[in-house]
Order: sequence, then C-alpha cells, then structure tokens
Amino acid sequence: MTICREAVHHKPKSNYAYAFDETTVHVRLRTKHGDVDRCRLLHGDKFEWPESTELTPMERVHSDAHYDYWQLAVEPDNRRLCYAFLLETADEALWYTEWGFESRAENELPTAGTDRSLHYFEYPFLNPADVHEPPEWVSDAIFYQIFPERFANGDRELDPESVEAWGGRPTRESFFGGDLQGIIDNLDYLEDLGITALYLNPIFESSSNHKYNTADYRRIDPHFGDEETLRELVDAAHDRDIRVMLDAVFNHCGRQFAPFQDVVENGADSAYADWFHVHEFPIEFEPRPNYDTFGFEAYMPKLNTGNPEVKEYLFDVATYWIEEVGIDGWRLDVADEVDHQFWRELRREVKAVKPGAYILGEIWHDSRPWLRGDQFDAVMNYPFTYAVYDFLTNESIDGTEFADKISRFLVRYPEQVNQVLFNLLDSHDTPRLLHRCDGDKRSLRLALLLLFTYRGTPCLYYGDEVGMTGGDDPDCRQPMVWDRSEQDRELRAFVAELIELRSSLPALRGGTLRFVDEECHGDRVVYRRIADDGDEITVAINRGPDPVDVSLPTDARDRELLFQVGD
Amino acid sequence: MTICREAVHHKPKSNYAYAFDETTVHVRLRTKHGDVDRCRLLHGDKFEWPESTELTPMERVHSDAHYDYWQLAVEPDNRRLCYAFLLETADEALWYTEWGFESRAENELPTAGTDRSLHYFEYPFLNPADVHEPPEWVSDAIFYQIFPERFANGDRELDPESVEAWGGRPTRESFFGGDLQGIIDNLDYLEDLGITALYLNPIFESSSNHKYNTADYRRIDPHFGDEETLRELVDAAHDRDIRVMLDAVFNHCGRQFAPFQDVVENGADSAYADWFHVHEFPIEFEPRPNYDTFGFEAYMPKLNTGNPEVKEYLFDVATYWIEEVGIDGWRLDVADEVDHQFWRELRREVKAVKPGAYILGEIWHDSRPWLRGDQFDAVMNYPFTYAVYDFLTNESIDGTEFADKISRFLVRYPEQVNQVLFNLLDSHDTPRLLHRCDGDKRSLRLALLLLFTYRGTPCLYYGDEVGMTGGDDPDCRQPMVWDRSEQDRELRAFVAELIELRSSLPALRGGTLRFVDEECHGDRVVYRRIADDGDEITVAINRGPDPVDVSLPTDARDRELLFQVGD
Repeated sequence: MTICREAVHHKPKSNYAYAFDETTVHVRLRTKHGDVDRCRLLHGDKFEWPESTELTPMERVHSDAHYDYWQLAVEPDNRRLCYAFLLETADEALWYTEWGFESRAENELPTAGTDRSLHYFEYPFLNPADVHEPPEWVSDAIFYQIFPERFANGDRELDPESVEAWGGRPTRESFFGGDLQGIIDNLDYLEDLGITALYLNPIFESSSNHKYNTADYRRIDPHFGDEETLRELVDAAHDRDIRVMLDAVFNHCGRQFAPFQDVVENGADSAYADWFHVHEFPIEFEPRPNYDTFGFEAYMPKLNTGNPEVKEYLFDVATYWIEEVGIDGWRLDVADEVDHQFWRELRREVKAVKPGAYILGEIWHDSRPWLRGDQFDAVMNYPFTYAVYDFLTNESIDGTEFADKISRFLVRYPEQVNQVLFNLLDSHDTPRLLHRCDGDKRSLRLALLLLFTYRGTPCLYYGDEVGMTGGDDPDCRQPMVWDRSEQDRELRAFVAELIELRSSLPALRGGTLRFVDEECHGDRVVYRRIADDGDEITVAINRGPDPVDVSLPTDARDRELLFQVGD
Repeated sequence: MTICREAVHHKPKSNYAYAFDETTVHVRLRTKHGDVDRCRLLHGDKFEWPESTELTPMERVHSDAHYDYWQLAVEPDNRRLCYAFLLETADEALWYTEWGFESRAENELPTAGTDRSLHYFEYPFLNPADVHEPPEWVSDAIFYQIFPERFANGDRELDPESVEAWGGRPTRESFFGGDLQGIIDNLDYLEDLGITALYLNPIFESSSNHKYNTADYRRIDPHFGDEETLRELVDAAHDRDIRVMLDAVFNHCGRQFAPFQDVVENGADSAYADWFHVHEFPIEFEPRPNYDTFGFEAYMPKLNTGNPEVKEYLFDVATYWIEEVGIDGWRLDVADEVDHQFWRELRREVKAVKPGAYILGEIWHDSRPWLRGDQFDAVMNYPFTYAVYDFLTNESIDGTEFADKISRFLVRYPEQVNQVLFNLLDSHDTPRLLHRCDGDKRSLRLALLLLFTYRGTPCLYYGDEVGMTGGDDPDCRQPMVWDRSEQDRELRAFVAELIELRSSLPALRGGTLRFVDEECHGDRVVYRRIADDGDEITVAINRGPDPVDVSLPTDARDRELLFQVGD
C-alpha cells in the first residue's frame, strides 16, 4: 500500500503551523490513520541551506478514525523556518513539500528544494506581534456562570413589580428578583466551593429577564443595582481572588436602545439611521421586521458594527466597565455574526486598557477564523459539551468515537488556545446537565469528572453543584436552590473535591492530554494528563454498569489513586 | 468502493466558503479525484429550518491528480447560511456536516441536524465589512515592471559618479544612470505597447542600484529625480490612463536610515533603540549582525513593525505618496516576514485615503493568511510562474500535471482574488523568461500567450517584449535595449497583439477558467475562458515540435480563430 496522498494535510500559519510563543513554532501534520510509521521534519534557515538543516522526528499526538496527527515544537535560531516532511512506511519514503509529493530517500532532498524559497513550506518570520498569548490566569481559573435574575435576591427594594416568589419553574416572562447584591451576599459560598472566576449573563438595562435586548449599555439594570453595586461586587470578588467576566451583547441591541428609538421615530432622517441594517424606512415590526435582527426577533435589532460611530460607542462601553469598575473580561454574545474587523479593533482597545482581560466568544462551531490571535482568546467549547452528551448521556457514541471526536477538537486550535478554551457542560442556552442525564447522578458525576480533568478552563452553571435540573430555556433558568434541605450536599462536596483536585495538580491545569487508544472503546475512555514537568495523571472512565479492568500506562511508577467516582 | 472520507474537505470562512460580494457566498467542497458522481448542497436559514432549505447541485469546477473541487454560489435571503453536503455515487449517499459523516439518503437529513446550530456548517452572517473587494481596475490592467536604474536615462545631470555606458552586463555594483525622467520620456512607448499600469522597483534614497536598502522613505533618490519628477511622471502616466504602483520596502530599511544610524551611534540610549530587533548593544556588523536583518544582510536592518512609532512613521510614508503625488498602489517587499497586524493597519490607512489603491504583497508561497480581505488585495503569483517554467521551459511536467497544478492554485483563493492576482513570468528576482527558455522564442511566445490568457493581472518585465535575456541577478537587470536594430520588433508586435487581444475580450479579463481535462496531457494543454455573459474563448497550447489534433468543446458554435502562435 502506498501512502494515501489525499489524506495528507499541512498549512503554514494555521493550526498546523503557528507561533506558540516568541521563540517556538509548532508544526503539525495530518496523515491517514495507521498509514505512516514515522514522520520527520526537515527544517532550517533558508538563508543557510542546507548547512542549518536538521531532520527531527515528529510525535504522533492524536488519532481519530480517519487520521493520525503529528506534532513537533521547533525553536528556529533566526525566527524563520523553511521545512519539508519525510513520511515513511516499511515500503516507502515520501517527501511532502508545499509543491507536492516526491518519492525519494532520506538522503535525497526533494528536487523542489532547488527552488527552495518557493517550493518548501515556510513559516516566514516569527514576529512577536503575531503571537497569540491568552491571559495566563485563565488556565488556572474555575468559572461559575450566574444568570443574575435567578441567582439570589439581595435587595428586595429593587424587585420588579411582577416579581414571583423565589423557587419554582419560570416562564419566559418571569421575574424572581435576583440582583447583584445577591451575588455579593453569596461570594463566601462561591469561594468555599473553590470558584475563582464569575461569568455573569447581561446586567445592563433591559426589559427582559435575560437582558440580551440592551436598552442602555452604560447603565446597570435598575432591578439588579447600579454602578456602585457592580463596583462593590467586583471589589469584593477581587478581595477573594475571584475575577469577574461580563456578557457583551454587541451583535444586536434592544428595541428600547435610544439610537434605535430615534430611527423608529425619525426614519432615514435619524442621525442613527446607519447604526442598523434597515432595509427600508420607515421601520416596520410586522409581519417581519424590515431591518436585520438576531434571528427574526424584532426586539433585537442588529447593530451595524461596520459603522465607525457604532464601533466607537461600543468600544467605549467595553473599556468603560474595565476602567471604571475593574472587570476582568468580556464574553461576546453571538460573536460569529459580527464582522471580524470589529472584533480585531475591540481586542486592541480592550487589551490596551487591560492586557490580562479575557476575551471569550460565544461560537458553537469550529472557531478557527476567530482564534488566530487577532480576535478572541477563546470560545465557549460547546463541541466538547456535545461530545460528552453523546458519550455519557445519549450514549450515541462509544469510547472509541468519543476519543476520536475529542482528538479532532484538540488539533483544531493552537496549544495555547486549548489551554484557555471555556469548557462547559450546560448553560442558560441548553437543558441542564442533570436533565440531559435523565436524573442519573452517576452519569452527572462522570461528566463533571471529565470537565474538571479536561484541558482548558472549566465553567460550572449555577446550581448544578447542588443538583438543580431543568429542560430547555426557560426551565434551565430556575431560581437557585438555597434551602440546604433541598440541595444535594453530597454532590456539592463532590464538586468541591473535584475543584480542589484540579487546583492542587498542575497536570490537570496545564500540559497535554493523550488518549490511551487501546483503552478507549465500548463503555470506557482512558486518558493521560501530562504536566510540562512530566508529572502524569491517568483518568479512567467507565460509563457502563459493570466494573472493567483497565491497563494503565506501564511507565507509571509511583501510582496513587487520587480520586474515585462510585465503587 | 465507499467514498474516501479522508479526502473530503470543507471549512467555513476560508477559501472553501467566503463572501464573494455583499449578497453572495461561494461554497466549495473537495472530494477524492473521480470518487463522487454528484455533490449537492443542502442550505437554508437556521432560524427557518427546514422550511427555508434547498438542495442545490454543485458544479465540479476543477480537478487534479488527487482531488475534485466543487463550487456553488449561494445568495442567502437573510445573509446567513446553514448547510450540509450530500455526496453521491451509484452505491452510496453520504451526508457531510461539521460534525462528521452520515450514510443516509437524500430524504433523510443527517441526525446531526437535531443540534443544527452546532452540527451543520455555518456561514454565520455575511457582514459587508468582511467582504474582500479588490479594486476593479486591476483585473483590466496590463502591468509593466520597471527597474528604474536600468530602464532609461532621461537626465544625465543626475547620473551617479560611477555611471557606466548604457548597455552591456551589469555587476551587482553597476550604475547606468536610469531615472524617472527616462520613464516619463518613454511613456509613449509604453502606451503604444498597450500598458495601463507601471510597477516601479524602489525609488527612494538608497546607496545601492536596486534601492531595497532605503536611507530615506520621504525622499526620491537624487539619482532618479525628486518629488517633482515623480509627480510629473504620475501625472503624465495618468494623462494616458496608466496607473503607477511603487515598491514599499517596510520589512527592513538601509544602514543609512537615520533612526538606524542613531542606534549605531547611541546604542540602547537611542530614542530609536526599539525601532529594530537588536539582540544586544552596541550594534555590531561582523561576523554576523547582532540585530535582525533581511537574510543575513547587515545593510538591511529589519524594522520592528510591532512598535507603534515605527507603524506611524511607515503609515505616514504609505499615505504621503498617495496623497501628495497620487500613486495608485503599493507592492510590499518581503511581505511575509512582517507581522499581520502591521499589514491590517496599513490596509486601513491606505484604503482610507484611496479606496482604489492596489495593495500587492511579495509572497512566493500559498498566501491565504494574507488574502482574507484584511491585508492584501493580491500577491505576486510566482507559483504560476514556476508552473509555466515546469511545463514550457524545463518540460519537467506534462500537460496533465500542469493542469493539475494550476487547478490547485485556482481553488486556493476566492474568485475575486484570482481576478487580481499579479501574474508574472519573470522579474528582477529571477532569470529572464528568454533565459529560462534557453533562447527559444517559440517557448517564450507560448509562455506569453499563457500569461495574457490566464486569470488575473498580467505583468511584463521591462524589455522582455523586445527579446532581452539574462540569468539571475544581476544579469536579469541589464539596461533596456532601446536601439531598434537590437530589438526583436516581431516579438514586440506579438506582445502588443496579445495585449490588444486581452483588452478587447472580456472573457480573457474576467469570468472563469476551466481546463478541458481530456485535452490536457503530454505536450498539450487546452483551457476555456468563460465570460460572465457566456462568451467563451478556448486556448490550446502544444509545446511539442509536431502538430496535434485537438477536440474543442462541442458547444462552441460560432467559432473563430482569434490568434495563433506559430503555424
């Protein structure tokens, strides 16, 4: 069998070759699964060729049903890299360059090399300005997502008129009186659980309970508190080393947003006529809005983020809350429907006032176009979420397929992005995890074990830790259960223990993840978390009802059972 | 045989799915060559699913040895697109989504669709700000590259002291006295040839004859003229509807550049210490420079384009010559070694003062990372150049392989980029085409025929049209042959005829290119240029010594022989 050319893939300046830091380039290669015995990288400086070249073995870091993925870290002497791949089987030696394939031996460089500057692959120059460096604190953080209207009511004077009694199942129109003071009042609870960062759903003035239809980006919703309350919350959180991330709804605003109201009133004559995408004036709401919206929601007019005035307004908002109140990041709502240029400029503005701010996009898909270092630090990792559902709750895939999916995800992004991906098992936009688990807390615990031992940054949705459940919106947004008699205290202790485990073990927060391929099948998945210093943790998961024997990696010498779910 | 999964490729927001204009998304798919009989795209609005969906056949637009490439233009009603591919053979129907493959029939949508927002592919929103719109004039232009020191001496008073007599073979240190007045004096010659745009190698003050080591970006080299001469040149060119593009050497400067001289003198104390990448102070030139350079050239210190002061300085330079003198574009030297952020900002600055300015990067490789609409309009198309050499001058590949290579290049970029790629057969950085052809003017003519009938923008290197030859630099930079008795006037007439042909036929300037696969083999290549209005031109090339019979496309009704090379 000759090597399958059609499966081979590499592309410079992508997730297949990127600047990991200011001195290191990561080079990856994809080949057909099981097809190639060995891959080596010929690399050097094109201005000192061939004297500077080396032929270095690449490591097979991941595999899935279709492909093997190889990786090598290279530190070029002069920050520029010229390279080719040598793929070998027992029968064949195949060079792969940008120009194509050549069957030649190790000591015969590809003829393409005679036009080296054209035909080899190149990482032309490692410019510091292009290095994607997400904030360091994020990979150590434990996030907790709060839907403010439903977390805790700390100030009854702010309650909306139609407030309902705490507890029970909300409709889409319910108000329960949750507010910022309620969060402040419960910071001890969160600190005790081990939380080190909060993600709050929108808190700016808005008529709805979810507040994704902003009326005023510069005013805290009066039912939640005011700027002073937010400042108190941020300060009190910071006192506990807890960071605070807010929700930036910049794709669209609310119908009450003053510039939109002005367009409703003045049509084409409005000074804000170009702040939106209006198809024709005057504005009409029925039967369908005659302006772009989120989905077809008339109450969420899409903002024209290509308009310099809109940009200036929103960038001011983004920096205002960082500079005035000290928040630590922005989660960007519907991030993939906004233009890239807007996000690039937002990043510059935000990082200029707070280099360590975390910029997190809400994108449910492969997000490579936003994760090149010029836009977001990370995205909400819903592909991980759904892979966990498929393996642990739907059981629609087995251990092999789960490892395949996750492996594919792990090579999608640069390593430094994998390190800060925002991993979650549920949110205000999904049914709760326990609902997905059909109430089975063993599955729930296994999913949580996966979350807290996976690469990236875990986020817990408020109340999951005490056994809250609920289907799709609005059911997943029930008021937090504070009555201890209604809380699952054992589950809470379990979550606290997982958080403690992660916090105490660098191998769970940094380093790499490798599946033990031969132990990923049927009901089981086994993977190793390997710290940069070599310290290693093996995680073995058995979703089935019966015990199974698992062969752990043979190089584990001083083994210690750190944690166990079930018997 | 089942469909080869490993060969199937698609990625949203790449050359496989991009905004072609403000209403159209181009969707492409790659499958294994000859593997799939039919591809269809299921597409619609995710907020009106499945009512809004259609299943539309894709066209197989290109093929190479490994793959078939399919394409479809879609105009989504609401500027957002949710989609999946249906691949079919006689034996198999296979759905392909972002989540993977599913063997299901046409009337059974993939199960992944139950989590549609996650599992289908998406082009989330077609934002006008993200549309890549290169200047319209470029695809109609005929460029002519001038190396100013060698084109014509129009003002003997400006000659360098060491000036040599016009003609003969230069060394790396030769000066022949070419200048801007020489270009002005010969605009009639260029207009008569059919040229509509000039690309000038660097003209700013510099000690070398090539002037890639800039001493002063704000001053025309005194041996070439002054700002007033440049203005005269640009005005005189514009009077003839000829545009002028200059060479921007922003990756590095020259040793005489004042800020660098300041660092040489004052070391770490210099106000310009951070304008370069100095490894340690004081500056040393031997045995190797202790600062980053182009290659290892001590006389070309690399600029720190991540430094805001450097950016401001260079952006001022870039806009100054547009605003003050009216130039129409910049060719960016060593563009791939400069950081992407610099180029993004440069684009904004340049387009703000002249939206129609052409921004052309010197990159010899696959240039996708620079051609997403945020950086360059196009790159110098050296891959095309070398494919032509391989087929017509080296004869190292046959017609099949040539068509394969070109097909691969044509799917690399969005169609609007293909439309303005800067196609060339030689330059100051390569041996001359006639040298490559070993003096064989039949090969030369076939190469020129290819150049002028290919997609994108052709550029002629000065003097090629009168039969100039020369090997690698400095030999390819000989003084222009003006003595008519030494000029190949027949060749010049041939080139003028080709230019006239291209200028008169929209199908050669716009539209698409399709190879006639069954007629691309051995010594021959046949391709069709198809205008948007359906008008069609077939180009048949036979590099061999003997006549061959070629089957033209059967749907050509009113055939007319437009042009012939040889008998």
